Amino acid sequence: MGAPSSGKLWGGRFAEGTDALVERINASVGFDQRLYREDLAGSVAHVRMLAEAAIITADDASAIEAGLRTVRADIDAGRFEWRIDREDVHLNVEAALADRIGSVAGRLHTGRSRNDQVALDLRLYLREAFLNRATDALDLAAVLLEQANDKAHVVLPGYTHLQRAQPVSLAHHLHAYVAMLLRDAGRLLDAHDRANRLPLGSGALAGTPHPIRRERVATELGFPELTENSLDAVSDRDAAVEFLSAAALASSHLSRMGEELVLWMSQEFRFVQLPDAFCTGSSIMPQKKNPDIPELVRSKTGRITGSLVSLLMTLKGLPLAYNKDLQEDKEPLFDADDTLRDILTVMARLLAGARFDAERMKGALRAGFVMATDVADALVAAGVPFRDAHHRVGALVQTCARRGTELESLTPAEWHELMPELDAAAIARALDPVVSLERRDQPGSPAPKRVQAAQATFEARVLEARARVDRTRSRTELCEWMRSPAT
Amino acid sequence: MGAPSSGKLWGGRFAEGTDALVERINASVGFDQRLYREDLAGSVAHVRMLAEAAIITADDASAIEAGLRTVRADIDAGRFEWRIDREDVHLNVEAALADRIGSVAGRLHTGRSRNDQVALDLRLYLREAFLNRATDALDLAAVLLEQANDKAHVVLPGYTHLQRAQPVSLAHHLHAYVAMLLRDAGRLLDAHDRANRLPLGSGALAGTPHPIRRERVATELGFPELTENSLDAVSDRDAAVEFLSAAALASSHLSRMGEELVLWMSQEFRFVQLPDAFCTGSSIMPQKKNPDIPELVRSKTGRITGSLVSLLMTLKGLPLAYNKDLQEDKEPLFDADDTLRDILTVMARLLAGARFDAERMKGALRAGFVMATDVADALVAAGVPFRDAHHRVGALVQTCARRGTELESLTPAEWHELMPELDAAAIARALDPVVSLERRDQPGSPAPKRVQAAQATFEARVLEARARVDRTRSRTELCEWMRSPAT
Amino acid sequence: MGAPSSGKLWGGRFAEGTDALVERINASVGFDQRLYREDLAGSVAHVRMLAEAAIITADDASAIEAGLRTVRADIDAGRFEWRIDREDVHLNVEAALADRIGSVAGRLHTGRSRNDQVALDLRLYLREAFLNRATDALDLAAVLLEQANDKAHVVLPGYTHLQRAQPVSLAHHLHAYVAMLLRDAGRLLDAHDRANRLPLGSGALAGTPHPIRRERVATELGFPELTENSLDAVSDRDAAVEFLSAAALASSHLSRMGEELVLWMSQEFRFVQLPDAFCTGSSIMPQKKNPDIPELVRSKTGRITGSLVSLLMTLKGLPLAYNKDLQEDKEPLFDADDTLRDILTVMARLLAGARFDAERMKGALRAGFVMATDVADALVAAGVPFRDAHHRVGALVQTCARRGTELESLTPAEWHELMPELDAAAIARALDPVVSLERRDQPGSPAPKRVQAAQATFEARVLEARARVDRTRSRTELCEWMRSPAT
Amino acid sequence: MGAPSSGKLWGGRFAEGTDALVERINASVGFDQRLYREDLAGSVAHVRMLAEAAIITADDASAIEAGLRTVRADIDAGRFEWRIDREDVHLNVEAALADRIGSVAGRLHTGRSRNDQVALDLRLYLREAFLNRATDALDLAAVLLEQANDKAHVVLPGYTHLQRAQPVSLAHHLHAYVAMLLRDAGRLLDAHDRANRLPLGSGALAGTPHPIRRERVATELGFPELTENSLDAVSDRDAAVEFLSAAALASSHLSRMGEELVLWMSQEFRFVQLPDAFCTGSSIMPQKKNPDIPELVRSKTGRITGSLVSLLMTLKGLPLAYNKDLQEDKEPLFDADDTLRDILTVMARLLAGARFDAERMKGALRAGFVMATDVADALVAAGVPFRDAHHRVGALVQTCARRGTELESLTPAEWHELMPELDAAAIARALDPVVSLERRDQPGSPAPKRVQAAQATFEARVLEARARVDRTRSRTELCEWMRSPAT
Repeated sequence: MGAPSSGKLWGGRFAEGTDALVERINASVGFDQRLYREDLAGSVAHVRMLAEAAIITADDASAIEAGLRTVRADIDAGRFEWRIDREDVHLNVEAALADRIGSVAGRLHTGRSRNDQVALDLRLYLREAFLNRATDALDLAAVLLEQANDKAHVVLPGYTHLQRAQPVSLAHHLHAYVAMLLRDAGRLLDAHDRANRLPLGSGALAGTPHPIRRERVATELGFPELTENSLDAVSDRDAAVEFLSAAALASSHLSRMGEELVLWMSQEFRFVQLPDAFCTGSSIMPQKKNPDIPELVRSKTGRITGSLVSLLMTLKGLPLAYNKDLQEDKEPLFDADDTLRDILTVMARLLAGARFDAERMKGALRAGFVMATDVADALVAAGVPFRDAHHRVGALVQTCARRGTELESLTPAEWHELMPELDAAAIARALDPVVSLERRDQPGSPAPKRVQAAQATFEARVLEARARVDRTRSRTELCEWMRSPAT
Repeated sequence: MGAPSSGKLWGGRFAEGTDALVERINASVGFDQRLYREDLAGSVAHVRMLAEAAIITADDASAIEAGLRTVRADIDAGRFEWRIDREDVHLNVEAALADRIGSVAGRLHTGRSRNDQVALDLRLYLREAFLNRATDALDLAAVLLEQANDKAHVVLPGYTHLQRAQPVSLAHHLHAYVAMLLRDAGRLLDAHDRANRLPLGSGALAGTPHPIRRERVATELGFPELTENSLDAVSDRDAAVEFLSAAALASSHLSRMGEELVLWMSQEFRFVQLPDAFCTGSSIMPQKKNPDIPELVRSKTGRITGSLVSLLMTLKGLPLAYNKDLQEDKEPLFDADDTLRDILTVMARLLAGARFDAERMKGALRAGFVMATDVADALVAAGVPFRDAHHRVGALVQTCARRGTELESLTPAEWHELMPELDAAAIARALDPVVSLERRDQPGSPAPKRVQAAQATFEARVLEARARVDRTRSRTELCEWMRSPAT
Repeated sequence: MGAPSSGKLWGGRFAEGTDALVERINASVGFDQRLYREDLAGSVAHVRMLAEAAIITADDASAIEAGLRTVRADIDAGRFEWRIDREDVHLNVEAALADRIGSVAGRLHTGRSRNDQVALDLRLYLREAFLNRATDALDLAAVLLEQANDKAHVVLPGYTHLQRAQPVSLAHHLHAYVAMLLRDAGRLLDAHDRANRLPLGSGALAGTPHPIRRERVATELGFPELTENSLDAVSDRDAAVEFLSAAALASSHLSRMGEELVLWMSQEFRFVQLPDAFCTGSSIMPQKKNPDIPELVRSKTGRITGSLVSLLMTLKGLPLAYNKDLQEDKEPLFDADDTLRDILTVMARLLAGARFDAERMKGALRAGFVMATDVADALVAAGVPFRDAHHRVGALVQTCARRGTELESLTPAEWHELMPELDAAAIARALDPVVSLERRDQPGSPAPKRVQAAQATFEARVLEARARVDRTRSRTELCEWMRSPAT
Repeated sequence: MGAPSSGKLWGGRFAEGTDALVERINASVGFDQRLYREDLAGSVAHVRMLAEAAIITADDASAIEAGLRTVRADIDAGRFEWRIDREDVHLNVEAALADRIGSVAGRLHTGRSRNDQVALDLRLYLREAFLNRATDALDLAAVLLEQANDKAHVVLPGYTHLQRAQPVSLAHHLHAYVAMLLRDAGRLLDAHDRANRLPLGSGALAGTPHPIRRERVATELGFPELTENSLDAVSDRDAAVEFLSAAALASSHLSRMGEELVLWMSQEFRFVQLPDAFCTGSSIMPQKKNPDIPELVRSKTGRITGSLVSLLMTLKGLPLAYNKDLQEDKEPLFDADDTLRDILTVMARLLAGARFDAERMKGALRAGFVMATDVADALVAAGVPFRDAHHRVGALVQTCARRGTELESLTPAEWHELMPELDAAAIARALDPVVSLERRDQPGSPAPKRVQAAQATFEARVLEARARVDRTRSRTELCEWMRSPAT
């Protein structure tokens, strides 16, 4: 009697055994064991409900829950043997439960299927991933805000097309990334809320005849809502796609940050020094201090985007409902989650230790005609139409460039000849980057007082987003148990 | 003197002209002319603010606004000559304005840059795209709900792994797609709200010294908020990535629908007949009625995902702030927007006209042992542990399969011998798909009354989402003008 | 003094240690240890050359080679401790060598750098991967040819748009995949040849002042040519991209095969039975025999395409020469190599055991008007212009379809009325699929004798490709040692 | 009676007309009209064969060929009306032929189908694309070689991790790209050869009963071989995937070139001046000379990779044989072909006009401790083990870096104290980049004489590849006619 010893629940159907190759290709336990805490929490919630609905006895439920807790303890302690012949995390756990408590273990699977079970595990995993990565993004934003706090007057060239364009401040520059990270966090949190529905109770694809109580399981696991269609629920991987999309975009922001740090670390820029801990040397060249971490961060957007493509392509054209193809959802998701965590975390630490070179930054304003726009603006203030002013300053720049000099090297006589509308004071003001900053006095612009206001706004928005995370995170006893770290 | 006649605003800097190849590669007017209505609305809002802030005179503002309106009328009427030597939509419009109203046109560009101008145009475009595609998704959901309305009792096999699994109803099946589409709409609307900030006033990258009033422009154009950092604002393409991500996922859902229609149209299934209008024939084979539209719909998820990859890859590693690479944002976006619109719309029309074959669907339940789970459930109800029941029914199925028969063909004597726990009535109930449906009586499950409840819920959610679209859409006079169709 | 005990070769440059997070993110040994055999073979070749060029003594070279062999033995035997603080496979091996043979180990790195060393390891790996996966593709082609061998007369409908179109034979159908696989093998072999150049000797980026002899190393390792530019050689990952491209396309072919097997396994088709070993059951539904392996095979093209995207995106915009981003080349490559191996291998075994149901296939020709084209062709033979014939048969089909019958059910009187040009014998011939096959007598067409000719041609081409693999594979002593399996 | 006037060949089957939306979505003529020359050449070859095989009369064949030539003339001259209701290029041409020569036009389609017709057109297109883009790559390589010709002594820092690493020469740097381009050309040519098979004669999927002569058509169109399986031939898009893969990789190389030009144009580097024609200015900032073309080139690898993803995803899981999804092959292919042509061409012109600043490059060697490796090598030459030498020079660099000086500023006394093994001459040699170059005297290394040898080798390889293109290109009369430009 009973399930065949192989742990394969469907053995009665088949005359032949599976061979090793197929077993290996088919098995997911190598990667889905990562879901063991979610799987166990989901099973405990399910078994409590089964007892409450009198589908199984209270005694059986207690035995099962106790057994599940010992399984958890064993896995946490590294004492659990994961068996590839038991296919996946679900069957490994269930078979291990049977090893411990005997045939009563079989009652746990009443009224559910692996299809809705894995859908549940994935939602529980994703809920945490959305909140944790949002928190990581906010932590990095907080580090940037700390660095930015006293740098509203540290001037450097803003660049477009990697050409020096106009003066900005370092605080303003860092704030740009804060704005990106706040969007990233918001995206992750919106996706969390959309995913926050209990799929359990959908059965293999069509529900179950057992009188289960889905709301009760939802309450145990802190889901505010139920999924609304069983065919959809067992084959819906939208939340995983949304995670990957949000992760790809966040990693794209970090790739920009990585690129800038690589540039700023170069001998040509030297705008920043990174702590040695974040760089490596060369096996050949003794002088090298390479920005390995920013380079790796830059590259990871390829990795995460690849995972996104992988999942979207896997999902293409799958008929309803569950198809085995869906097993391919987990590895790209887990890899992207780990990668995003790593790059957000390491960038936070790296930027906390970065030392920016205000002198080099300021020095960079002295070449490249960065103040040319301000000269044009001064002409406009003196009544010259903008297009004319632009044209005349352009010609002036070309003249200097041919000589290999900068605007500062023009003599008063030359200024007077070329720009008779401007007196010496106007010229001095036009060439002063600090004055330039102060005049750019609009919300979102680099005038120091605007930047200080932005600093306060961004700090408030980070706190607000953190509060949203806290409000959103389910704090049921089972959720806390699920999250409790391995001892 | 003044702007060079070529329309190139930066001509003063250069000794040489551009040659045709570069001009062609560099120019974006071939595709960004699509933004002319957004560009003109943004300019009108800007010029009204300039006047209010006394940066230009009221008379100049009036002349400019009137000129912009004639430009709009000319473009609407197909009387406008787009010139590649004028690079992009912005310079084409501005030069055309100058052609019409003379040098006062030059004042329009005061306090803004092409960098924040294109950022504005793109946001205006994307706001509409988010709302319009959400509406298209809701329209398709509505068609599905209409089809589903009287089909809670139309039984067919639900499939997993493309194997017949358990009976479901057609209404339940259609509802699965409604659930997907509601998520799609929600995703688009959340992304809309995140993007709904005015970028104008960010200048080329660092704001402007002119005393512009960003809030005023925001009000004119119905933006509830301003972007918070100028460097970010001119280089932020998050909203475009979000659109593409949401479109890729929505198209992935449609690819599943397309695949199912192709399957259901095959001679093997014959579950559905599509209107001839949606099929085509063969140049060789007279009998062919090919499901071209579902096939094309299925394929488009590749197209949109390709566009998503394209943009994410373009954004990789771009330093702050604006880089010319960003010009590559528009074509994938426009193509994905058109594609998503087309596939949502054509699927709505196609499904409105689809005729489902209830007899074929019901007939499909007679083979494939679809009721086996119900027999096992009946054994469980008679006291047999689930795993035993599963194993015994599995063996029974294998016996029948070897004979080439179905469960229905077993004699009463055979039933009695193999399943002594079940009497004839229990067997009859277990083999009746309608009974099976009714027993799956959980929220989200296919019991007809649950499906009817789901129908009501989904209908309400569609209405709610439509109301959100209505509430969200900016109805300022300029927005209405922007949206008004070409005459 | 000497190298710091941490194994970091660049420790002299730095005041601080690296912390654990950075160490983990930075280290590649977790995945690049897979290259240990390539790394060791490359080192042996290098050290032999160093001695021959008198850069080091023969005694030192002997000691180093012996040490490298013990390292190999230890790794093979699972006795080697991979250390994350030693970063990568190269430093792990080198440090382990020093542990065993002392400071003479340091001479091994003379005249090379990790940058050209990893480039070499990767080429050695890729050469094998190209040849091995080509062989796997040929093995699968051989299985298909064996299955096809006696099936030139087994008729089934060929499909277009998943609509039954015209009769073909099963051998012809299987041959389609043989043609794809031969292209796959050819692509892999062409890419192999392009990659078959020795990069060692390129140094970190700019060669070495030591009088090394690159040709000698090339001979030892069986490279027919040297890379031609050091900056390129250390940053070139073309061969990895080519592998991923070829793998993505091959997996695309297999996804088509997987889809067809899923279809053919469905109750609707039932054209094939797969061995139980390749299917799994359901934890809920006793009757299920799911085509898990074909489904997984179908999905893997997403995984490999994702890896291709990942690498292409990583490479985007990297300035010369080596950048740390390149470390991200290995995981997608290794994963794609394993995946392609698995899906080619498992499909070969699965298809070797597949049992095709000739009766079901033939039966499928009786519905769907598959012979309609032949009727039209018969009309053409009787002198009716093709377009007329097509149109008249189309109308005939529509009539039958309305009645719910097939062409076979038309009475002689009806045939005579509708198609007076055709006598009874002509009609019978037109409706006979075997006759239809035989008339399609062109190279590449399904006439049985053409299919038999194709069988012979394909068999010859498989042998020819196998011979090319054999000719191409380097058989130097070091290459054999590199390939020798762990004991 | 006859073909319906709408031009739809399958109208007999249908009771309803198609509506405008479906017509638009379904039609491909908007983009596949680009194939008109291929389509016409294929038709001429087909009709000649039909006559030779006595399937149609010689008179009919002459009339058809003459008609096709007038269609070609009309299209070339812009006199042809493409009609969306005629769906695609094939039906537009065929219907136009009928308009001109009457019902004999109908005989053209004998023995072929749109499925093998489009497969042929695509192969003809791709053959040219492979050869033309290979030629473009060779042209760019030739420009680089011309620039490199006299620059084997122009020293600049080679970079790794964007850190100055060791001196190289500009010729050596440019050669790195030549090596990439030669691989690109080789890849395109190998793919050409694999694709060079005639698919016509495969019919809709299963050949044709007409006694066509495929070899004759192949000869007319210069195909050395026939496709070997009709099911494969009508659904095989491998050559398009190969084109996109090769284009993606080539564009990845160009993105690296683009990135370097952007860097080298920055004020921080100033290694290169581009002709004004390849740059643009700013609408706001008068001083800006932006590297728009290199930026656009850099971005296009995203576009092409997106197209590759799009096609691979479209192909996923398509059952045999033709499916409408395949219509989605053309737009990504055409776009990638145009894009690759543009970026190769514009880079060739841009680099032909680039002026490199040898002084700035040499100056960059004076900072960043670029000669540190040479000092370590000098120590090794003086008997110090490499690891020790590396460590000591690392410490020396750190000392200088703390002081903010370079190695050159150390006094003789300091040198003597820190590096007693080195005398003044040895130090001077170690710090001289030209000496450094000369010592790196290996094949592929930057020693000037090696670079000159490489120059000769690369020039020879470009010529050889051009000769291969010439040998490969079919020069049949029909192919020449197909290629002849519109008048």
